[in-house]
Amino acid sequence: MSDFLKNNILFGGDYNPDQWGDEVLKQDIESFKKAGINLVTLPVFSWTKLEPAENEYTFEWLDQILDRLDEAGLHYFLATPTGAQPAWLSTLYPEVLPVDIAGRKRTHGTRVNFCVNSKKYRERAAALAGKLAERYSERKGLAGWHVANEYGTFCYCENCQRKFRLWLKNRYGTLEELNKRWNTAFWNRTLTSFEEIMPPSELNDDCIVNPALKLSYQRFMTDSTAECFENEAKLLKQATPGLPVFTNIAGNIKVLDQNRMLKVMDIVGWDNYPAPDDPPSLSAMYHDIMRGLKDGSSYYVMEQSPNQQNWQPYNKIKRPGEVRSIAYQGLAHGSDSVLFFQMRQSAAGQEKFHGAVISHSGRTDTRIFKEISGLGAELKKLGSSIIGAETRCEVGMIMDWSNWWALENNSGPTIDMDYISELHRYYCALYSNNIQVDFLKTTSDLSGYKVILAPLLYMLPADTAKKLIQFTENGGTLIATYMTGWADEDDRCVYGAYPGLLRDVLGLWAEETDALFPDERNGICITEEFRRKEGFDQVYSSDFLCERIHPEGARVLGFYKDDFYSGEPCFTVNEFGKGRAYYIATRPEPAFLDALIKLLMKDCRISAPFPVEGAVEITVREKNNNKTYFVICQDPEGGLIDLGAETLTDRLTGETLSGSVKLRFRDVLVLGND
Amino acid sequence: MSDFLKNNILFGGDYNPDQWGDEVLKQDIESFKKAGINLVTLPVFSWTKLEPAENEYTFEWLDQILDRLDEAGLHYFLATPTGAQPAWLSTLYPEVLPVDIAGRKRTHGTRVNFCVNSKKYRERAAALAGKLAERYSERKGLAGWHVANEYGTFCYCENCQRKFRLWLKNRYGTLEELNKRWNTAFWNRTLTSFEEIMPPSELNDDCIVNPALKLSYQRFMTDSTAECFENEAKLLKQATPGLPVFTNIAGNIKVLDQNRMLKVMDIVGWDNYPAPDDPPSLSAMYHDIMRGLKDGSSYYVMEQSPNQQNWQPYNKIKRPGEVRSIAYQGLAHGSDSVLFFQMRQSAAGQEKFHGAVISHSGRTDTRIFKEISGLGAELKKLGSSIIGAETRCEVGMIMDWSNWWALENNSGPTIDMDYISELHRYYCALYSNNIQVDFLKTTSDLSGYKVILAPLLYMLPADTAKKLIQFTENGGTLIATYMTGWADEDDRCVYGAYPGLLRDVLGLWAEETDALFPDERNGICITEEFRRKEGFDQVYSSDFLCERIHPEGARVLGFYKDDFYSGEPCFTVNEFGKGRAYYIATRPEPAFLDALIKLLMKDCRISAPFPVEGAVEITVREKNNNKTYFVICQDPEGGLIDLGAETLTDRLTGETLSGSVKLRFRDVLVLGND
Amino acid sequence: MSDFLKNNILFGGDYNPDQWGDEVLKQDIESFKKAGINLVTLPVFSWTKLEPAENEYTFEWLDQILDRLDEAGLHYFLATPTGAQPAWLSTLYPEVLPVDIAGRKRTHGTRVNFCVNSKKYRERAAALAGKLAERYSERKGLAGWHVANEYGTFCYCENCQRKFRLWLKNRYGTLEELNKRWNTAFWNRTLTSFEEIMPPSELNDDCIVNPALKLSYQRFMTDSTAECFENEAKLLKQATPGLPVFTNIAGNIKVLDQNRMLKVMDIVGWDNYPAPDDPPSLSAMYHDIMRGLKDGSSYYVMEQSPNQQNWQPYNKIKRPGEVRSIAYQGLAHGSDSVLFFQMRQSAAGQEKFHGAVISHSGRTDTRIFKEISGLGAELKKLGSSIIGAETRCEVGMIMDWSNWWALENNSGPTIDMDYISELHRYYCALYSNNIQVDFLKTTSDLSGYKVILAPLLYMLPADTAKKLIQFTENGGTLIATYMTGWADEDDRCVYGAYPGLLRDVLGLWAEETDALFPDERNGICITEEFRRKEGFDQVYSSDFLCERIHPEGARVLGFYKDDFYSGEPCFTVNEFGKGRAYYIATRPEPAFLDALIKLLMKDCRISAPFPVEGAVEITVREKNNNKTYFVICQDPEGGLIDLGAETLTDRLTGETLSGSVKLRFRDVLVLGND
Repeated sequence: MSDFLKNNILFGGDYNPDQWGDEVLKQDIESFKKAGINLVTLPVFSWTKLEPAENEYTFEWLDQILDRLDEAGLHYFLATPTGAQPAWLSTLYPEVLPVDIAGRKRTHGTRVNFCVNSKKYRERAAALAGKLAERYSERKGLAGWHVANEYGTFCYCENCQRKFRLWLKNRYGTLEELNKRWNTAFWNRTLTSFEEIMPPSELNDDCIVNPALKLSYQRFMTDSTAECFENEAKLLKQATPGLPVFTNIAGNIKVLDQNRMLKVMDIVGWDNYPAPDDPPSLSAMYHDIMRGLKDGSSYYVMEQSPNQQNWQPYNKIKRPGEVRSIAYQGLAHGSDSVLFFQMRQSAAGQEKFHGAVISHSGRTDTRIFKEISGLGAELKKLGSSIIGAETRCEVGMIMDWSNWWALENNSGPTIDMDYISELHRYYCALYSNNIQVDFLKTTSDLSGYKVILAPLLYMLPADTAKKLIQFTENGGTLIATYMTGWADEDDRCVYGAYPGLLRDVLGLWAEETDALFPDERNGICITEEFRRKEGFDQVYSSDFLCERIHPEGARVLGFYKDDFYSGEPCFTVNEFGKGRAYYIATRPEPAFLDALIKLLMKDCRISAPFPVEGAVEITVREKNNNKTYFVICQDPEGGLIDLGAETLTDRLTGETLSGSVKLRFRDVLVLGND
Repeated sequence: MSDFLKNNILFGGDYNPDQWGDEVLKQDIESFKKAGINLVTLPVFSWTKLEPAENEYTFEWLDQILDRLDEAGLHYFLATPTGAQPAWLSTLYPEVLPVDIAGRKRTHGTRVNFCVNSKKYRERAAALAGKLAERYSERKGLAGWHVANEYGTFCYCENCQRKFRLWLKNRYGTLEELNKRWNTAFWNRTLTSFEEIMPPSELNDDCIVNPALKLSYQRFMTDSTAECFENEAKLLKQATPGLPVFTNIAGNIKVLDQNRMLKVMDIVGWDNYPAPDDPPSLSAMYHDIMRGLKDGSSYYVMEQSPNQQNWQPYNKIKRPGEVRSIAYQGLAHGSDSVLFFQMRQSAAGQEKFHGAVISHSGRTDTRIFKEISGLGAELKKLGSSIIGAETRCEVGMIMDWSNWWALENNSGPTIDMDYISELHRYYCALYSNNIQVDFLKTTSDLSGYKVILAPLLYMLPADTAKKLIQFTENGGTLIATYMTGWADEDDRCVYGAYPGLLRDVLGLWAEETDALFPDERNGICITEEFRRKEGFDQVYSSDFLCERIHPEGARVLGFYKDDFYSGEPCFTVNEFGKGRAYYIATRPEPAFLDALIKLLMKDCRISAPFPVEGAVEITVREKNNNKTYFVICQDPEGGLIDLGAETLTDRLTGETLSGSVKLRFRDVLVLGND
Repeated sequence: MSDFLKNNILFGGDYNPDQWGDEVLKQDIESFKKAGINLVTLPVFSWTKLEPAENEYTFEWLDQILDRLDEAGLHYFLATPTGAQPAWLSTLYPEVLPVDIAGRKRTHGTRVNFCVNSKKYRERAAALAGKLAERYSERKGLAGWHVANEYGTFCYCENCQRKFRLWLKNRYGTLEELNKRWNTAFWNRTLTSFEEIMPPSELNDDCIVNPALKLSYQRFMTDSTAECFENEAKLLKQATPGLPVFTNIAGNIKVLDQNRMLKVMDIVGWDNYPAPDDPPSLSAMYHDIMRGLKDGSSYYVMEQSPNQQNWQPYNKIKRPGEVRSIAYQGLAHGSDSVLFFQMRQSAAGQEKFHGAVISHSGRTDTRIFKEISGLGAELKKLGSSIIGAETRCEVGMIMDWSNWWALENNSGPTIDMDYISELHRYYCALYSNNIQVDFLKTTSDLSGYKVILAPLLYMLPADTAKKLIQFTENGGTLIATYMTGWADEDDRCVYGAYPGLLRDVLGLWAEETDALFPDERNGICITEEFRRKEGFDQVYSSDFLCERIHPEGARVLGFYKDDFYSGEPCFTVNEFGKGRAYYIATRPEPAFLDALIKLLMKDCRISAPFPVEGAVEITVREKNNNKTYFVICQDPEGGLIDLGAETLTDRLTGETLSGSVKLRFRDVLVLGND
């Protein structure tokens, strides 16, 4: 990693100088300096500009731009502009264009409109990446490589079909094994040759009615995309072993298994686009997920909007201080950058109304330019104290793409299944108590944690089950819920009663699962004893799903309030080894989860850094035994943080603070012991 | 019919042993015996298992299973597994795969994914059916043949196009006749050659804008499907002339004209899947429709779910007693079976969450297994007293597929047209008064009935009109409504004023039909005289459609309450011959229909078997002059039945009952004179 | 123009005698005479009837019909029946059939189902038009030529693709220019050859994500359709230079740029189909738009429904007097005709339930037939006083198709953008004050107007900007709104701050535009001074969009009420030359617009013809210095008009009126000085 990356919070973003002449470029560079910008990403969408015909390269244009940037002392992530191939490439080699889920050969247009398995695409993309590496690897301002852009297009062409069959052969070895693992006997899907396999599409409805096939295609497309990334990345890596190579993950992170993608990347790059009405806890959770992708390493927010977006239904301009608080939330959760899409607004095209640091007006006296400049000045002050700083958590939450896909591929028990929003319910309870959490893979080491939450771990690999059992046995506290442990890694349900491999550790079995109508409610009645001891309320509301469970050793803490299973258990704890495992058989209201988290805090001796009043978000990053506290007031009514006896310095103002500090909406403190 | 079928209520259902090994099979057979199961249907989806390559058969697996079943004394319906062809067949002969309504050639996948007109499909299906017949027709446990599964896929391939043109040539003889009957002059749809005819699809929007063409395609596809069924059925029939051959009708009965389909089947098989919030009157109506398909003969419920479904939006588990009351409702309305999908739950695939007698847990101590076992014990007691018992009705209701299709193919007068739900309104009024009704075809003999309801008989064949006129003339009471008699069998509107051929018998003509917005209401003001005499209320609400009618002999019983046609007639009766014909020109609220049915009961001397309080359903089946009364309490608040002086035995408990009997929700009585 | 057209309000409509025999034709002609019908349009959909095989013509059938019409003294618009080609043509020459936006080759069916660029279609259509011209141009009853029917189908076939590339080459000259004007550098859409251009479709999502390409295709398809019209029209024009040649514009006027279409037509023909719940102001606005298409010339309402439609969700029958008031509204706004679809109802086909002068019943004693007859008698009385009479307006409103398309092609700032409904808000304020308005093109001469409203003139050509500046400079009053002047004719946004070229005349620049959620509101606080002077209220509600603007000379009249930009200006006026320009930066509630219009009336000395109470619509048409006042009571509660001292004659009754005249709902007065 270069000194520049080691010492600076990256501040700047996507810049597309092919849309403007040299005059504008010069002005823009002036403006960048005014605003404290230190890095731009380019040329993300300039393949044709650089290779106007096959194997004819015209790098002079880019040379001059990089010269200017180097002169100005600006750094840059060089992008391979392979997120949108040239029209000439699509025209010359139609194999480059994908076939969609409806079986339609695409025509040239939009972006990320190529088949990730196309040989020709890969050949030309690698050739261009190679040329870029060759020409620019010694450049002064080069800080890293940004490959393509927001991958995520699935293809169903014959080439993909062939590769999919090989992928399956590789995964399952024999047809017999595949037939067994997918239970193809159901609906006579039995295969007698790999050649018979068709991708799950609208042409066979298997995208809806064949969950194992769909899951496989999701995995295959992820692997194909990772290969497509590596095809370029390996060349860049060879040329500059010390610089990071990565891509930017799009907003819809569900499409590809980012855990698999990240295996072949040096650092996580993510595009953070909260909707105007998203709660701050949701973007906080996404940030934590990003930090989890490389096991807690810091990551880059590659894009966020300095003002309105254009593709929301209602594109609100950012409120005063909003872009700043969003920027700090990223830093607070593990990002080492504040990068924007985009530095200058496009005059035309799909995103011409998307906000930019410099708008169509070209002016630097706009509200947003001034806010960005203010932020730039602040970030300079933070210096390198944050870069690479770690987040140390005592709580982990398991989040898994295969589980996500499988849960939502399912037909039944309810159409309202939304894994992320289920996780968010648990996350919220932690977040509002300022308990930080690591998002973990099913393969992560769990040993350092006091508490593991594993909501809706429907698809439970045997190894993961073993880890969870060991974790609990060794004194950990496990939280599991309805729909845990039903299926194996091929989405085949277990025989012998749910929660399958976790039946012992949870001390119960689940007989059947009732789905509630959207406006239907049940309730959790807390046992007298537990209530007296732990300060829970008498009754909490619940909805969504209600599992009928039978304790086999677990102690009952709560009963169903209504319906024919009223009085049956729905909240249990099982002492197991040195630890314990809670089970929540229905979806509780937030107050229940808040009480549960407070119970865990007490029992497991976990605490927030400081007490707060109102919705005040606190996180801590640590580097060289130095703690940095990020405090963001997310409460429209304002709030306060009580530092007690501690005396901390606000690194943004230099002010020394202690005791109770009042905060207005969107106020940010960055506190340290310096 | 075999002795087994003559003497036993069929109890069991679909079983798919190709999804499990022999060990599970042995356990399952034990469980079946425990639960009183006497029949399973298999192997519904095992084509590839039985014919893994073209013309190579591997029946040994099935032989062994049947051996075990025979040993255990279980019976079975043998299924031709042709509801889902093998992948090898689709791969080898793409003609087997359908072309969809969007013109897309399908790929292999899902089920019922073949062209019913494919020669190759028919060849291979018949070959397999022939082999099964040859090999198993002498089997001890063989109770009948179940062909394929839930037919209903439309195809638009070139082969179907060719056959459609021949079908049209056959129906209309000449192009001239077709042009006239379809009024092709409209929008210049005039045909100069049969070769010009294209199916109504998304490629020409004729699936929306060409009602006569669409109706023809619906009829053609029904006939093609019936041929496809017969292709197998005739071989099975030859092999075992004494055993029933049939298929199972899917939930969406609208797709195919089941009256046409049933002509070539021995018995009706139907899959009964009420949604969790369907009223019991709706499934009651479907049962009665099923009984009507073969003119009152008893039928088989081939599938119902022993617990939750998986393809509902919200898949509720069945409440205690619910599966029992659903089972008895079938028997009560004419079914001779209680068969479930499915005996054991699939480990994977689209329906892995669908309820089963034996769930993934494999346990027999589940709530549902115990309920099923209890039911099994009861059904044994009922013995043969019900099998083939008849339902004798004094009221008939006409229900016709062509009319259904045509009404809903129509553009105008309202997008809310839903024939089944319109019928259900009238049905409800009968149901809640415990008046049983036969569903009749447009070709049925009407002579035995006192009352015929013919709601929305928009498409009125001349023969049917004649029957209705004769029926009324001979003393019957006819109920007709708005949108009666507008069109002939080709959906061509009559000239000379609606209700066309029924104008005389109804004694009026209809000038125009107003469509109301969903939240708009009009009302029916009952005439002073009629009100005094018959005890109707003064005003009833109405909505949906309001026809402006002009009596030509009919007596006015009610007037419109609102709008510019306030004061104009909307409820009339016409004395005709020895009978009378009521006309209801707008859609009334349920209270009106209740009053109407009570009027008919009085006037036509029709009565419920016993008085009830609350929603208590009573039906009667009769065999050898022995009546069996089925009493089901459908009222969540409970209800009662008043047996008065009669003394009846509850066949389930042996208890003797008379006078007023209290019932809790879902209580069932099966009463007889024994 | 023939004497017939000069002296008669056209009264009649579409008639399709190919659907009936000669007997019905004779009856119908009798009925037409009874109802005062003077013109029918035919044979709109009879291509196959006239040319049953390629180049074989059978005109005898039409000869006889025209003989009968001539005998009866009826006139007719002869239609080229090219709105629906024969099935034999589609079968013989598949190139005639379009490819849809999903890339699917269409099959024969529906109507307007041909490629407007198909050579074969154009060849056969021209051949038929030529034959009709040759045979019938001397016919006594011939009043004009109606070409095809409701054009508007887009095609994406390879032939269209080729022509589109030529069209682009023609428009832009070079690729370089196109690349610049479309800003193709965005998302690497840079073109290196015209051959690389693909139409914007679902196959590349460019129909959603490439606004400049989509706009070009909309323009190209309009030009192609205009060519397709001309292909026939030029032959008809040659044959009968004195008779009008035109087509009928469909309800969805957005599809084609009607201003471009009308350049090649003699007169506007329009199909007026208000939905049952449309406010009368909306159809009034459409009428005024139609009058604007040929710069104020009178036009023909070619179709309206004499009773219910069939393709509305809820097809209400027309209320008593409704068809009459709709008919007069057309005459009031500049139409010289009252023509219906249709004279006789089709027995079958998609529109068999659409209302007709003569319904399926064939009777002439129906409510509707009697209303039509009454109307016929009245129209005869009006004689030629109206034909060609002009509407003289002091207020103009700019309405532009490119702007409409571009606004709604945009991604952002809000999905609720609906240009027509935005215009309608301004229109309503004029309408309810009985101020008539001319709809103007961006190229129109503005010099005769006192006030120009240019709501949401997002796409502002330089010439239009110049005209608006000059207009204001010369003393005119300009009203502009949020989203004005953002983009040039290729939808490329201006640099240097919105409203771009109108920045000086409006005296402000706009920094950013906030989108409000549907239920969100801001408000306009009127300055104390302006309020005192002009009688505005203190606060008005606003919603939708809020622009943050900075006055550069403009005087602030109103401030935002809420949000962080509370207190910032949102309503300004700029004195410019001898005129002034108002700017409204947010969408105000109707009361604000009413106050604004009343202010303009006072300041610019514009007034309604007469004061009214209630919703009473008044318009004036003028001919030979003779004014005709059309007064329609659109108020369900009734209203009145105060004629004051003037004495006017009601041309419908001959009555003389003055002073205050009470009106019931749907009353119509046609007043003159005679």
